[in-house]
Amino acid sequence: MDVLKELKITNEKKIVLLVMDGLGGLPMEKGGKTELETARTPNFDALAAVSECGLQTPLGIGITPGSAPGHLALFGYNPFDYPIGRGVVAAMGINFPMKPGDVAARINFATKDESDNITDRRAGRIPTEKCAELCELLKGIKIDGIEVSVKPVKDYRAVAVFRGDGLSDKVADTDPQKTGVKALDPKATEPAGEKMARVAAEFVRQANDILKDQHPANTVLMRGFAELPHIPSMNELYGLKPLALAVYPDYKGVSRLVGMSVIEGLNHLDEQAEVLRREWNNYDFFYVHHKYTDSKGEDGNFDAKVAEIEKVDAFLPKVLDLKPDVLIVTGDHSTPSFMKSHSGHPVPFMIYAEVIRPDDVKEFGERACAKGLWGIIEGRMLMRIALSYAGKLKKFGA
Amino acid sequence: MDVLKELKITNEKKIVLLVMDGLGGLPMEKGGKTELETARTPNFDALAAVSECGLQTPLGIGITPGSAPGHLALFGYNPFDYPIGRGVVAAMGINFPMKPGDVAARINFATKDESDNITDRRAGRIPTEKCAELCELLKGIKIDGIEVSVKPVKDYRAVAVFRGDGLSDKVADTDPQKTGVKALDPKATEPAGEKMARVAAEFVRQANDILKDQHPANTVLMRGFAELPHIPSMNELYGLKPLALAVYPDYKGVSRLVGMSVIEGLNHLDEQAEVLRREWNNYDFFYVHHKYTDSKGEDGNFDAKVAEIEKVDAFLPKVLDLKPDVLIVTGDHSTPSFMKSHSGHPVPFMIYAEVIRPDDVKEFGERACAKGLWGIIEGRMLMRIALSYAGKLKKFGA
Repeated sequence: MDVLKELKITNEKKIVLLVMDGLGGLPMEKGGKTELETARTPNFDALAAVSECGLQTPLGIGITPGSAPGHLALFGYNPFDYPIGRGVVAAMGINFPMKPGDVAARINFATKDESDNITDRRAGRIPTEKCAELCELLKGIKIDGIEVSVKPVKDYRAVAVFRGDGLSDKVADTDPQKTGVKALDPKATEPAGEKMARVAAEFVRQANDILKDQHPANTVLMRGFAELPHIPSMNELYGLKPLALAVYPDYKGVSRLVGMSVIEGLNHLDEQAEVLRREWNNYDFFYVHHKYTDSKGEDGNFDAKVAEIEKVDAFLPKVLDLKPDVLIVTGDHSTPSFMKSHSGHPVPFMIYAEVIRPDDVKEFGERACAKGLWGIIEGRMLMRIALSYAGKLKKFGA
Repeated sequence: MDVLKELKITNEKKIVLLVMDGLGGLPMEKGGKTELETARTPNFDALAAVSECGLQTPLGIGITPGSAPGHLALFGYNPFDYPIGRGVVAAMGINFPMKPGDVAARINFATKDESDNITDRRAGRIPTEKCAELCELLKGIKIDGIEVSVKPVKDYRAVAVFRGDGLSDKVADTDPQKTGVKALDPKATEPAGEKMARVAAEFVRQANDILKDQHPANTVLMRGFAELPHIPSMNELYGLKPLALAVYPDYKGVSRLVGMSVIEGLNHLDEQAEVLRREWNNYDFFYVHHKYTDSKGEDGNFDAKVAEIEKVDAFLPKVLDLKPDVLIVTGDHSTPSFMKSHSGHPVPFMIYAEVIRPDDVKEFGERACAKGLWGIIEGRMLMRIALSYAGKLKKFGA
């Protein structure tokens, strides 16, 4: 990374990174086609014919990426150097202005019985509005020397951020991961976490008191205590002025962590296209994210994932109209419908630029890309190729 | 590297590394062929058919190599472990016998006005003969306890080498990189550089005095203060007895840095072939360098680069006649005529040996090699393959 930083050149060239979440797939039956191979994608296929193609592994071979590290890799970072805790992803996703030293934790509203045993870890999946009301009530929590913020995320999910001296994220989850047992006490995993563990215990005590007459959400479970990692910004590393066009909070969160500007209020690809055009002259790196390829894969809905891929194919010409100097199309990981989950399979990619060496790949698909110029590379290398092909890296050495 | 050192075996097998500088290219128009794909190369193609082929990235994906680090990679070193400063490249290029502890700096003769502002950073590009005369005058510089050598390089470029106790290369350039301002004072970038900074300041003071009546070269600018890096020799690492057959100074310089013997006075491929034959029994590793593929690429002259590749193709049978046990043909980086510069694109290679597994590649070109056995690998791996196929590495472990 330090090498890239020393070599960076700022110029007017524009890079677009188009990410279909969970793009990579599998056939539903032996000998069949994957979602991407099944989808009718005339625009992707035409682009593949004039691009360099390959497969990339966001976290190295065989490792299944979570969304945050998968994206860090696409942004050019080594995800293992920058672990991002669940609490931070949640806080950044709702644009909570975390500061160094703050500790964030994901909160689940939950249900417990009279013996304090957890009966529902998600409080009957209460709606977001109810979650917001309960967060409002938890404003009543007062802890000496600590500033506590509790904000709703989605459904039964919320986030708590603790600010004060001497806090640390070295605290274990209180979520017991099963029902019929009591919530765990917050315990320090290292001596540095002892103050935060005491603060969390007091938070839970007061929350239980405030929520005691609520139903079904009469308690809270805490997960993923996390401090803000220090991640050097894309501007610092690459000299880029980056913009994120994402609909879902978590992706905005990861974008903020690497110093991207983030457009709020986007709901679908049409709006993403419109804002991309509007902001084209104001930035030189554009990250465009489509979530639903992953969601449909997680649902195990092969046909619906195919349809989502086709929607992004139809969106592609709006990007091409702007004549990006470098365009990368890929995913942050695979989510095969067959597996209904993220997987460690490599993800197809294509890179278009003026200075590419076209290979023989004429369609965008897993097996076609496996025969592309790049073979299988680490996901974080895509950013280097993009910077190189955009003329944004000086040569190394005399 | 340490593993290689422990595994080395000395035997009679001979390895030839044939480097066409800046070999990798690009098509001039979409869908076209690269320089190498365009060139008529019957000898390369026949060799490809009985070789293992692939692409290599000298400094990893996306990083554009300078010549020195590109070559270090081909010689099997990690170039990021051995940064070679500009001063050292210049000194080694003219075969100045630098010793550990010496500090070399590139000197530009320049012009300053009466207020000491630099008006021309290259002194009107004075010819090499004038440069040599001025270097002769600068022999008058006397600094207590320090041995100073000033030697001409080419045109307005010279090199100064300082020898004495307590010197270090932690000194910033004095070249202000623009005109209309004064030269910078030599400043230590770390405390260790303070003595060298004082010596450099005294050097500049006396040089200005000596040159005050010269025109246009009435001052000097200093760049790239550098100590000899400690690079373990190829003999130490691999047990090889290596010989360099290069025409240009910089490549002889890098060869000397890794402990190769260097033949002086070579001017073209015919002489390189003749000396290769003559010295065949005296060494077991031969580095043969052809510069002009790079020069023509830098000029943007596609056809001339094609012609240079064809010249090396015609040279190849003279190498094959000697029946090398291992023969590698590649480049130290890409220099696409389309870009008129070094680039970060992977470079085609082929490795011939008795124990190879031939792949389906029947021609030596970028896209053909992309389909070769090796896919894309790091450039420094070529040396390992060569040593392995020459039986010069023991197995590791029981």
